[in-house]
Amino acid sequence: MSKLPNVTTSIFTVMSKMAVEYNAINLSQGFPNFPVDERLTDIVSRLAKENVHQYTPMAGYPPLMNKIAQLTKSSYNRTINPESELLVTAGATQGIFTTILALVKENDEVIILDPSYDSYESPVLLCKAKPVRVALNDDYTPNWERIEKECSAKTRMMIINNPHNPTGKILTENDFVQVKSLLEKYPDIIILSDEVYEYITFEEKHISAHTKDFLLDRCVMVSSFGKSFHITGWKLGYTIAPEHLMKEIKKVHQFLVFSVNSISQFAISEYLDVVDVNLLGKFYQEKRDYFQKLLQNSRFELKPCEGTYFQVASYANISNEDDVTFCKNLIIDHGVAAIPISTFYSDHKDQKLIRFCFAKDDFTLESAAKKLCDI
Amino acid sequence: MSKLPNVTTSIFTVMSKMAVEYNAINLSQGFPNFPVDERLTDIVSRLAKENVHQYTPMAGYPPLMNKIAQLTKSSYNRTINPESELLVTAGATQGIFTTILALVKENDEVIILDPSYDSYESPVLLCKAKPVRVALNDDYTPNWERIEKECSAKTRMMIINNPHNPTGKILTENDFVQVKSLLEKYPDIIILSDEVYEYITFEEKHISAHTKDFLLDRCVMVSSFGKSFHITGWKLGYTIAPEHLMKEIKKVHQFLVFSVNSISQFAISEYLDVVDVNLLGKFYQEKRDYFQKLLQNSRFELKPCEGTYFQVASYANISNEDDVTFCKNLIIDHGVAAIPISTFYSDHKDQKLIRFCFAKDDFTLESAAKKLCDI
Ligand SMILES: CSCCC(=O)C(=O)O
Ligand SMILES: CSCCC(=O)C(=O)O
Repeated sequence: MSKLPNVTTSIFTVMSKMAVEYNAINLSQGFPNFPVDERLTDIVSRLAKENVHQYTPMAGYPPLMNKIAQLTKSSYNRTINPESELLVTAGATQGIFTTILALVKENDEVIILDPSYDSYESPVLLCKAKPVRVALNDDYTPNWERIEKECSAKTRMMIINNPHNPTGKILTENDFVQVKSLLEKYPDIIILSDEVYEYITFEEKHISAHTKDFLLDRCVMVSSFGKSFHITGWKLGYTIAPEHLMKEIKKVHQFLVFSVNSISQFAISEYLDVVDVNLLGKFYQEKRDYFQKLLQNSRFELKPCEGTYFQVASYANISNEDDVTFCKNLIIDHGVAAIPISTFYSDHKDQKLIRFCFAKDDFTLESAAKKLCDI
Repeated sequence: MSKLPNVTTSIFTVMSKMAVEYNAINLSQGFPNFPVDERLTDIVSRLAKENVHQYTPMAGYPPLMNKIAQLTKSSYNRTINPESELLVTAGATQGIFTTILALVKENDEVIILDPSYDSYESPVLLCKAKPVRVALNDDYTPNWERIEKECSAKTRMMIINNPHNPTGKILTENDFVQVKSLLEKYPDIIILSDEVYEYITFEEKHISAHTKDFLLDRCVMVSSFGKSFHITGWKLGYTIAPEHLMKEIKKVHQFLVFSVNSISQFAISEYLDVVDVNLLGKFYQEKRDYFQKLLQNSRFELKPCEGTYFQVASYANISNEDDVTFCKNLIIDHGVAAIPISTFYSDHKDQKLIRFCFAKDDFTLESAAKKLCDI
């Protein structure tokens, strides 16, 4: 009967709810707990009294769209046409869903790299297309050989997530060389690139898919202001695609939400004049380093983290429980909430790995680390 | 290639754009041009400085959900369970799209009554289901005989819009008797009831579908705060459905937007404590009466208007142009924008009818009427 028979409550909802219930420190669902930039909240306070309350145009508030084009230019030296290649969305999730719905047809296949964020598979299933899940290597680099083996004339799309949630891995120039040679063999594959953490990378710079010439006519890039400006609740994102794909994406968008919250669009449009997104990497790098230092004497083994605000940790030295059970007990017995990594795999493979979100103020990180070091 | 080959730019976008271009008075796209209640903008101004910027729970901000349940109780004496029967959406459009995607399957048929709002058909097509468009009677009452003739075992859903955009017609108790007898013959049909103008009715009171006992287990009701609180840009709405349907709707919602703009939800939650939605009907009734009076010496013939903020008018006495051409020339030659009614019909039947939006301040209505009376 159900069109999504296997969908249950999202792990983020389950863990956040349990964290509240047990009054645990919530390092599970990814959201910052520090205050939003006062310059931004000042803008919202002022704008509320202005004429910002009626429909913006369908594809977005034009001044915001121009600012996003400027941001793309200054960040990546990539020129986009905001009128034909850009769409403002109700968060990146809506951008992903709308793109898949617009471009994927019945019986198409869509490559998804495991572990993967939970919102990629369901829209594919709603299109009656087939998700083909390919595991990353053990070090979370893409296994291009395995990926190529799964490609065929049926493959319509490959979804990449860079920087990668939950593993914190970022793609390298060499990965893009591999993408290029793959697309030479399969020129009809569209790359859907989820880059919501585009401004949160550390030692290495982020490479945005839509800056690669060979991808220009076949790449849909999705991003979000929620991650970049500590406003996950706003649900404001954007999608960049070549005109021939964007035309189709807009057709679906028009009937899916028509347009996006106006106040948020006006506010971010102004804020982009004063904020410097390039400070974000350093900000979160310090958080990562601090969190890693706080845990260095714990029994958790921390994995490398190149981007995002997530830290993967192995508890193999601590417990033999599967990761879902371990996370539940971590809340109940130790007062810290995390996300079990198995939930990002189609086969729910347990590897004794969990994910902590370190987008938290120092006091929260310290309190959590203290509990985690006591285990 | 396109999954929605026949979708073009929405008539609302076309006309609003043209209105700007020709500096015309815009009575086309439905949105108010008067200021938002200061109590509401004060709330937003204050909240911006508070902790309202992170994800709300997936189905909505719980205090807002409780307030919506209270509103439903006080407006219709209908008790809903906010946890299992309610979803907060990014506008009514998202509620409609999500409901159709969740509940309509390939080869299902969906009854849509013409003239109909342009966002009903596309989601049906994206499900590979068949929209079955049935014309209303000439007085815009539903033709229940014709509707029944189109029903069969394949019919999964019937979409009703009450109060009705663009005609301003509302459903009567007798219409619901007809729905009841129809559903006795076809017990599997779900009613999707678009009630975004639920609080904008005049001489007659609005009858909400989800207050009818026989509909309780098969009705999805969609509404919007945009229309009720003059904030169409906020894109904040809600959907009420019985638990067995809501479960499926939430599964899609979770991956379509995950959650809805947080500040808006916090703000409306507070505003519902102080605002009286029952004043809205009187407010717009005065607008309607004033607009009708202003046009009484024009050559337009005004149709009855029982609800919504739209006035349908015939220009048959003025011109023989088809309605799209007439509307374009009305902008160019007379500086007033309206919507051609033919665009609400699948066969684009021209009836020399256009729609004016009267959700405008008196000065705007007077200026527009002056131009319209000069024709
Ligand atoms: C939309 S809830 C999940 C938030 C998030 O991106 C994550 O925790 O991975
Ligand atoms: C979403 S744009 C259309 C606004 C509206 O509801 C109408 O004008 O009918």
